[in-house]
Amino acid sequence: MKKIDICLSPDLIHQYDLGSTVVVVIDVLRATSSITTGIAHGVRAIRPVETLGECRELKLQGHIGAAERGGKKVGGFDLGNSPFSFMNPELEDTKIAMTTTNGTITLKKSKGALQIIIGSFLNFSALLTYLERLPCNVLLHCAGWKGKINLEDTLFAGAVVFGLKQMFEYASDVPVMAANLYRHYKDNLKSALEDSSHVRRLLDLGLEKDIEFCLKFDAYKVIPVYKGEYITKMKLSDMLL
Amino acid sequence: MKKIDICLSPDLIHQYDLGSTVVVVIDVLRATSSITTGIAHGVRAIRPVETLGECRELKLQGHIGAAERGGKKVGGFDLGNSPFSFMNPELEDTKIAMTTTNGTITLKKSKGALQIIIGSFLNFSALLTYLERLPCNVLLHCAGWKGKINLEDTLFAGAVVFGLKQMFEYASDVPVMAANLYRHYKDNLKSALEDSSHVRRLLDLGLEKDIEFCLKFDAYKVIPVYKGEYITKMKLSDMLL
Repeated sequence: MKKIDICLSPDLIHQYDLGSTVVVVIDVLRATSSITTGIAHGVRAIRPVETLGECRELKLQGHIGAAERGGKKVGGFDLGNSPFSFMNPELEDTKIAMTTTNGTITLKKSKGALQIIIGSFLNFSALLTYLERLPCNVLLHCAGWKGKINLEDTLFAGAVVFGLKQMFEYASDVPVMAANLYRHYKDNLKSALEDSSHVRRLLDLGLEKDIEFCLKFDAYKVIPVYKGEYITKMKLSDMLL
Repeated sequence: MKKIDICLSPDLIHQYDLGSTVVVVIDVLRATSSITTGIAHGVRAIRPVETLGECRELKLQGHIGAAERGGKKVGGFDLGNSPFSFMNPELEDTKIAMTTTNGTITLKKSKGALQIIIGSFLNFSALLTYLERLPCNVLLHCAGWKGKINLEDTLFAGAVVFGLKQMFEYASDVPVMAANLYRHYKDNLKSALEDSSHVRRLLDLGLEKDIEFCLKFDAYKVIPVYKGEYITKMKLSDMLL
């Protein structure tokens, strides 16, 4: 039986064997939500980079530059990390270089996996349908906040495990914990938000609308996939079925 | 206001500032339960060591040798990791050298803290009373299994946070998650056990009685404290009040 596990922080990724596993990168507030939004709105490719310097360099080479640190857009770049800014029709068919506080490092640390895909509430059902059909093991890789485990990513991972029901064997105790946590909060995701330190951080920055949007189930049907240096929309030929 | 946090795995301990913090080491199945039992039954001091070689060496120097790997007592030593073996009246006033799969490394990695104490269900209320009165921050350090986060230690940490109510500010999302998990299971800790991979491992080894005992609230009133190389019973002069 295929197995599912959850890595609650990129600081724990060394514990997992990625080689035969599809990794789902999760940073729901807001990197993976923004990536999903951009790809759904026709962005051709998104290149995650770790430093502002790399992002600046790629901007000079013709990419759109998206940079966020500590929840804020960095000056001198075109975009920050708000999903709304990734809906702009002018971004259609462009390439974006993107650096964020937590999402980028989680993507980079997932390298070596059989396949790396992007998960968010915005593409929840599309993701589940794909995972259900996969013939291999799955690891849900939560970004957290600067390596620390956070509520919203754990909760999303729990929603995925809960949604997949008994299709996968649990490879550790973490899936059962996350699924129970999701069960605890699922009828009132807003109360979860009130308990999240990052949500309070974003609210302080006036980003309430971003949060509401990022928690919307199934706004899009795309699954972004991270291959080589770029994240693009998953095509039929990318599917490991 | 003093803060509380939970480190769910010794692989994450680098994220925490230990210098001004009292660290509670948690490995309820079974190292910290056995240590609590031994200290409560009059063992003078327990020295945690990482390798079987060190443990053997200390045995030659007059310590009782306690060694466990993968849930089993290691051949050639006097004790394994069962709390029942730590009740033996012959152990009174002896020194024990002890090495276990997960507990030892968690103790060692807690070095640098203001104080390191031992938590288990067996000394739950004594622990809470002490934590309530402390004037400083607290970190609950869960051993997990070979670095992986596990259910029973997370649940115990959640029980502590739940029990302390609003006396501490939460330093991250983890205390709220663990407390909710404990709330989910608290009226039926047995169902938690059925969900734990390590419990299944111990049951396969015929250790059902050990598990039942380790989940007993308040069997003892001692708080073992780890100072220098040894764990001893906390005295009035050790209390940071």
